[in-house]
Amino acid sequence: MLIIGEKINSSIPSTANAIKARDEGFLTKLALDQMEAGAQMIDVNAGTFVDEEIDLLKWLIGLVQSVADIPLCIDSPNPVALAEAMPLSRKKSLVNSISLEAERYSGVVSVVKEHKASVVALCMDDKGIPKDAAGRIEIACRLADKLNSDGIANEDIYFDVLVQPISVDASFGMACLEAVIGIRNKIPGAHTTCGLSNISFGLPERKLLNSTYLTALMTAGMDTFIIDPLDKRMMATILASQAVLGQDEYCAEYLSGFRAGKLK
Amino acid sequence: MLIIGEKINSSIPSTANAIKARDEGFLTKLALDQMEAGAQMIDVNAGTFVDEEIDLLKWLIGLVQSVADIPLCIDSPNPVALAEAMPLSRKKSLVNSISLEAERYSGVVSVVKEHKASVVALCMDDKGIPKDAAGRIEIACRLADKLNSDGIANEDIYFDVLVQPISVDASFGMACLEAVIGIRNKIPGAHTTCGLSNISFGLPERKLLNSTYLTALMTAGMDTFIIDPLDKRMMATILASQAVLGQDEYCAEYLSGFRAGKLK
Repeated sequence: MLIIGEKINSSIPSTANAIKARDEGFLTKLALDQMEAGAQMIDVNAGTFVDEEIDLLKWLIGLVQSVADIPLCIDSPNPVALAEAMPLSRKKSLVNSISLEAERYSGVVSVVKEHKASVVALCMDDKGIPKDAAGRIEIACRLADKLNSDGIANEDIYFDVLVQPISVDASFGMACLEAVIGIRNKIPGAHTTCGLSNISFGLPERKLLNSTYLTALMTAGMDTFIIDPLDKRMMATILASQAVLGQDEYCAEYLSGFRAGKLK
Repeated sequence: MLIIGEKINSSIPSTANAIKARDEGFLTKLALDQMEAGAQMIDVNAGTFVDEEIDLLKWLIGLVQSVADIPLCIDSPNPVALAEAMPLSRKKSLVNSISLEAERYSGVVSVVKEHKASVVALCMDDKGIPKDAAGRIEIACRLADKLNSDGIANEDIYFDVLVQPISVDASFGMACLEAVIGIRNKIPGAHTTCGLSNISFGLPERKLLNSTYLTALMTAGMDTFIIDPLDKRMMATILASQAVLGQDEYCAEYLSGFRAGKLK
């Protein structure tokens, strides 16, 4: 299990305000709070500041590294921003993200190779996101072939199965669960991840749906989550899911989470 | 999905007291409350009253049927009690339970056949409960063969995969999940069920573990749960699990549960 803290992302209004105001205290606290809550990697994203993205991304990387000795998930659809940002990362980073879209693929793969990074690979191509599991698995296999031939091992690929809202189509949840199972079977050693909270878009009690879907995804074999580690319900569900899925010997993490008050 | 209300069971102290006191008001309310909360079948069990079990079981069946027009799960390890109780059931009942234990099998199968009932089939034999998934699946296949040759169709068999506590062995949760997947693959049409709350025996925050494991079991394909429908967290998790697993077209049940205040 890899938990990536998602909060330093300019698409979150409070984070965007802090970035705009260059509020170092707010942002470094956000990094440390996420680590304290269990994040093993911190996502940094300044994508909504289109004209300043590169400078802000570099500033955020320096800022987080000034207080936290933790690997980063460098998050941008822009290969130029990734190329400029990656040299600043002190640890092995996760580049977020590549896809089978032709222009994006060629731009991002060279950055991943140059920095011996791992990479989030979106299960989509120039035609968009497939509607079903089979389409996602097929794209994942083609992506794995291309990435392997570019020297990137399965162990460094994190396939994002691209969760979509069940309020739009009731089958969207199962499509991603089946995609996770298919990718695990066909691409040994590769990881799977997703933007979990999309599942509940447009519905009430989103935290209930998100934490329920997290358990379903972990049962299917997903091993990497880009989430808000400050969401206590989510973190309690991760501890409980690890315990019931045999990923927590002697329930040691569950019990220590209980003693730390993390299960309420 | 079939939800069986577990509360009218003499192993629950408050229910045992009500049975002992012949408290008809308490027990009929327990039946109606469970139906109102979503139970589609009511379990009746008087097993802890060893000498009086047969009379009490018959009394309970009459009592529940006096207020509720609902199928019953007639719950006893004693073939004689089942044989005496079954004729009182007005609807098609679920006999709980048979197993590959030689004496129990022969005693119970004739009752199931005579009353054209369905049956809970425990994945155990005279050697006890297997430690792993493979052992459970193997027993389930032998049970299905025997039950089929005795005229009972797969659709009338509810395999209980016999959940054991993860506090005893961290692998016990996965063993049952894999057993559910294996039974679904090898015995088409058959149902799977379990005594869910065993998973959390000996651990804190049991409702969190129970509801998390319920989602994992539903993801693996379990379709029948003998649970406390008055546990709001459990019922909210069932509604959320159905929604994310594509079992709730247009999220209609989830949304009506929300409007009825069942998701909090």
